[in-house]
Amino acid sequence: MNRGLLIVLSGPSGVGKGTVCAALRRKMPELIYSVSATTRAPRAGEVDGVNYFFKTKEQFLDMIARDALLEHAEYVGNYYGTPREFVEKTLSEGKDIILEIEVQGALKVKEKFPEGVFVFLLPPSLGELESRIVGRGTESKDKIDHRLSVAVEEMNLLNKYDYAVFNDEIDLACGRIQAIITAEHCKRERIQHELFDELKSLTAANNGSER
Amino acid sequence: MNRGLLIVLSGPSGVGKGTVCAALRRKMPELIYSVSATTRAPRAGEVDGVNYFFKTKEQFLDMIARDALLEHAEYVGNYYGTPREFVEKTLSEGKDIILEIEVQGALKVKEKFPEGVFVFLLPPSLGELESRIVGRGTESKDKIDHRLSVAVEEMNLLNKYDYAVFNDEIDLACGRIQAIITAEHCKRERIQHELFDELKSLTAANNGSER
Repeated sequence: MNRGLLIVLSGPSGVGKGTVCAALRRKMPELIYSVSATTRAPRAGEVDGVNYFFKTKEQFLDMIARDALLEHAEYVGNYYGTPREFVEKTLSEGKDIILEIEVQGALKVKEKFPEGVFVFLLPPSLGELESRIVGRGTESKDKIDHRLSVAVEEMNLLNKYDYAVFNDEIDLACGRIQAIITAEHCKRERIQHELFDELKSLTAANNGSER
Repeated sequence: MNRGLLIVLSGPSGVGKGTVCAALRRKMPELIYSVSATTRAPRAGEVDGVNYFFKTKEQFLDMIARDALLEHAEYVGNYYGTPREFVEKTLSEGKDIILEIEVQGALKVKEKFPEGVFVFLLPPSLGELESRIVGRGTESKDKIDHRLSVAVEEMNLLNKYDYAVFNDEIDLACGRIQAIITAEHCKRERIQHELFDELKSLTAANNGSER
C-alpha cells in the first residue's frame, strides 16, 4: 500500500489559511487534519485530541527532547507544535493528512518531510498584490519601496514550495488544492510503485504454480 | 504572460485514449486539440484543419525535411504527424493544448518538448491488469510468463511520463486529467514567474515616478 500524502498549507499571515483549510476539510471529510500539541489551557468546548493535544510544559519539553515534534514555536508564553507520531501513523495507514501552519513552521516540517506537498496560499490576485503595495497612489516612494522589498522577500520564501494557490474565492482555492491532491496521487512514481508490487506478486504466484 | 501547457495523453493501444480525449474536450472546450497532418485522403465529412491537416506526400516529406513535425509515423501506406507550428502558436498565446498519441510518438514529442505534461492512461485497475495477464486460470505458465514480460515492458515505458491515470470510468479518468492540468497551472515555478514579472513592473513604475 502506498503511504498517504502530507499536505502542508502555508502562506503569509492574514492570507486566509485557516478559512481555506476549514472549508477544504468540509469538502474532503476523508482528509485527516494534523492536530497540534499546546501548553495553553483548553478553552470552553475544546476537546483534547480534536482541537489540540493539551500538554503540560514538562510534557511538551519532553516531546522536544525526544524529537517527537516536527516543529514547535513559542507564542505569547505558550508552546505549540506538530506531533510527529500522529502524522507518521496516518501516512502509514495510507491516509492523507493536512497541516495548516505559518511559513517558518512549514520550512521546519520540510526539513523532516521533504516528500510532503507544500502549498503556498497567495492573496486574491496580482491586482490585489499591487494595491497592497502601491496603495491609493498617494503613498511616498519610500513607503512603496519598503512594501516592494517585503513582497520580494515573501516571494523568495515561495522557493521552498511545490505549488502556489491564489485565494481569490474560498471555493476556487479549495478546488485548486483538491486538484493538487488528486494530481499528486496520479504522479507516475506513486502508481508505478503499486504496479510493480502487483507484477511482482503475479510473477511470484506464476513461478509458485510451477512446483 | 505564461505559456500554455502541452498535455500529451498516451498509453498502450486499446486502453481508450481516443474516448477519454474526446470526453475531456467536451468538458473543457477551452482546451485546444492538436490536429495531426496526414497524407491519407479526407473521408466524407472530414474538414481540413479540424479533423486533420490534409497534405500531399510531397508536402508531408517537405515538412519532415524542414523539421516542421514534432513526430511522424507511417501507417498502412499513409503518413501521420504532429505539426510543430500549431502547437507552438497555441502555447505562445497562453492556451493549453492536448495531443493524443501512441507511446512511440509521445516519446519523440518528449525529446522536443521535455516541458510537456506527459500522462499515461492505464487499464481500469490492477485487478484488470491481473486478469489480462493471468486469464481465467487455465493458461499455460509460458503464456502467462510472456504476458508478464510484455506488461513489465509497458510499465518501463511509464518511466518517461509525469502522471499515470487509471481508465476505470471515463468521467473519473477525465476528472483526474482535469485535476492534473489545474495542478500544473498551480506549480510554484509558473506562478512565481507571473509574480516576479508583476513586481518588476511595479518596481520600474515606482522608480519612474521619482523623475
